[in-house]
Amino acid sequence: MTSNQSRPPLGSPKLTFSADAFFDTQEAPTGLEKKRRQAQQFVERHSSEGRKVVLVTSGGTTVPLEQNVVRFLDNFSAGTRGATSAEYFLAAGYAVIFMHRQHSLSPYTRHYSHTTNPFLDLLSEPAEEDSKDGSSPITVLPQHSSALKPVLHNYHSARKAGTLLRLTFVTVTDYLFMLRELSQVMQPLGKRGMYYLAAAVSDFYVPSQKTPEHKIQSGKGSLMIEMDQVPKVLKPMVQKWAPEGFIVSFKLETDEDLLIPKARNALERYGHQVVVGNELNRRKYEVVFVERISDGNFKESWIRLDPQQDNSVLGKAGEKEIEEDIVRNLEERHEQWIKSAQS
Amino acid sequence: MTSNQSRPPLGSPKLTFSADAFFDTQEAPTGLEKKRRQAQQFVERHSSEGRKVVLVTSGGTTVPLEQNVVRFLDNFSAGTRGATSAEYFLAAGYAVIFMHRQHSLSPYTRHYSHTTNPFLDLLSEPAEEDSKDGSSPITVLPQHSSALKPVLHNYHSARKAGTLLRLTFVTVTDYLFMLRELSQVMQPLGKRGMYYLAAAVSDFYVPSQKTPEHKIQSGKGSLMIEMDQVPKVLKPMVQKWAPEGFIVSFKLETDEDLLIPKARNALERYGHQVVVGNELNRRKYEVVFVERISDGNFKESWIRLDPQQDNSVLGKAGEKEIEEDIVRNLEERHEQWIKSAQS
Repeated sequence: MTSNQSRPPLGSPKLTFSADAFFDTQEAPTGLEKKRRQAQQFVERHSSEGRKVVLVTSGGTTVPLEQNVVRFLDNFSAGTRGATSAEYFLAAGYAVIFMHRQHSLSPYTRHYSHTTNPFLDLLSEPAEEDSKDGSSPITVLPQHSSALKPVLHNYHSARKAGTLLRLTFVTVTDYLFMLRELSQVMQPLGKRGMYYLAAAVSDFYVPSQKTPEHKIQSGKGSLMIEMDQVPKVLKPMVQKWAPEGFIVSFKLETDEDLLIPKARNALERYGHQVVVGNELNRRKYEVVFVERISDGNFKESWIRLDPQQDNSVLGKAGEKEIEEDIVRNLEERHEQWIKSAQS
Repeated sequence: MTSNQSRPPLGSPKLTFSADAFFDTQEAPTGLEKKRRQAQQFVERHSSEGRKVVLVTSGGTTVPLEQNVVRFLDNFSAGTRGATSAEYFLAAGYAVIFMHRQHSLSPYTRHYSHTTNPFLDLLSEPAEEDSKDGSSPITVLPQHSSALKPVLHNYHSARKAGTLLRLTFVTVTDYLFMLRELSQVMQPLGKRGMYYLAAAVSDFYVPSQKTPEHKIQSGKGSLMIEMDQVPKVLKPMVQKWAPEGFIVSFKLETDEDLLIPKARNALERYGHQVVVGNELNRRKYEVVFVERISDGNFKESWIRLDPQQDNSVLGKAGEKEIEEDIVRNLEERHEQWIKSAQS
């Protein structure tokens, strides 16, 4: 990059979009080294104990438009897919690195959204005469206990076993640096590492060199924002960071006609194992697994839940969640992938 | 507006930026009428019971860049200021309409952030032999009870008294329509209505006529986004929607030299009662109240907490929160404002 921060001339798109150029010119987030060490210890321990490890990315990314972040561009994602899937991966015996957007949904607590199912509604206040000496405990109301008990049990189990490592990001730059770092940390796992890339990553960003220091002042007239393309890191991930890993990417589209063609196109370009495709409004009860069989040949397998059984209200115990099937399906594929290594 | 959706010619900025033009051309959010009815009943009941009513707006707004919202522009705000203030307004006897961004922090539950203080950590799981017959309750661990009890008590009190009405928005368009509607609903309160506009509202938006239906396809090259200025609605709010209301706006700046000049400028332009100014990094322990005394004459009063006592960790009971002082201060000013009406 030239020092005057000018854009590369038109006709040299490779320079603009390459992952190397991105990592060379953007600053690594603070705390990255600490996260790397945490992940390394986590991976070494679980690897030595014979567990498979999955990296689950979850939530949206932000693109700061100012260095003192007041305004930013965001991607829609509460993190439901990632948080829910992480629970099923834990249940399936995986150790899970849950790399999530700050404040997005987390495994277990997701069942008790502050907005739709606040936990304070679960609790009974001790009667005033009882509470004065502080002896009577606050208890969970009996009608909420049966739904809460398995959630609490699984939460405690994961904590005791130390099988869930949560690491947070905020911006798309954080995300990309962390993804590279964690993939490299997981590389020694070889085929026993899975990468479940459910985060909604921005396609565009504003390079830090172009980000004004202070809040953009709104004078008269309209605002123009010019954003550069975020590099496609799946290719270096497949080729360099985690060459033996089982890599699953996601494709969310609002126009369903684009879903399969774009999933196939991604597999051709990046050479990873599976694309899980979903249409925005049907994502809770319909997904498609797209795989590449050979040059130009693809296979699609659908999972469909009865929309009537759609678990759109979190925390309703006993309702089927599509992530249970997604994870079971991927677990089987991952086993085959591991066996293919041993043969 | 012309039907070909072209921008108004340069030189006619009033057309572009006027609130009337905005409301004439943008579509009202679904559910607005229901929210209006809820607010109307709420206001009528509390007005007849002699309570003052405050509208607290909280959280950031989004600007969709697509009609099927996948990407949007967002403003930084977890909603801490609004959620915390709402608790102190309730404690001071106000009925509170809490108009907040979906998933932003809420009064009471804010103390138990899923990320930093998950409520599942508060609970003890019954021993397995006890839980089989389902008889033993899940209880809050004794070490967490003393902090939780007052929160739970105040939460239940507000629910029993029906003094907290929560209404959600997502986009800046939702926000503007709801603000107009609720201000008009509160208009009969006259001087007994307060408007505490703590939400972080985007200065720019993409008119729905320019919003593409599907997710923007990221081809090669950079992305240009052109956004129009959001109309300044404080002026019509002061002049038409709530002409007798006690209106408090907020100014958040990262460059502290701009804080006072911009607060004064807002008071001159819109004619409301108070601007609460805060610098981004010191907002938890330093704010300034700016008032207009007469033409060109202003008064500033500062509230400063000891930064050592800064309550940066939510849920730590017993720590001083600056919102307690902000609300007490405004309550006094509001009382004076009400008396000025009676004289």
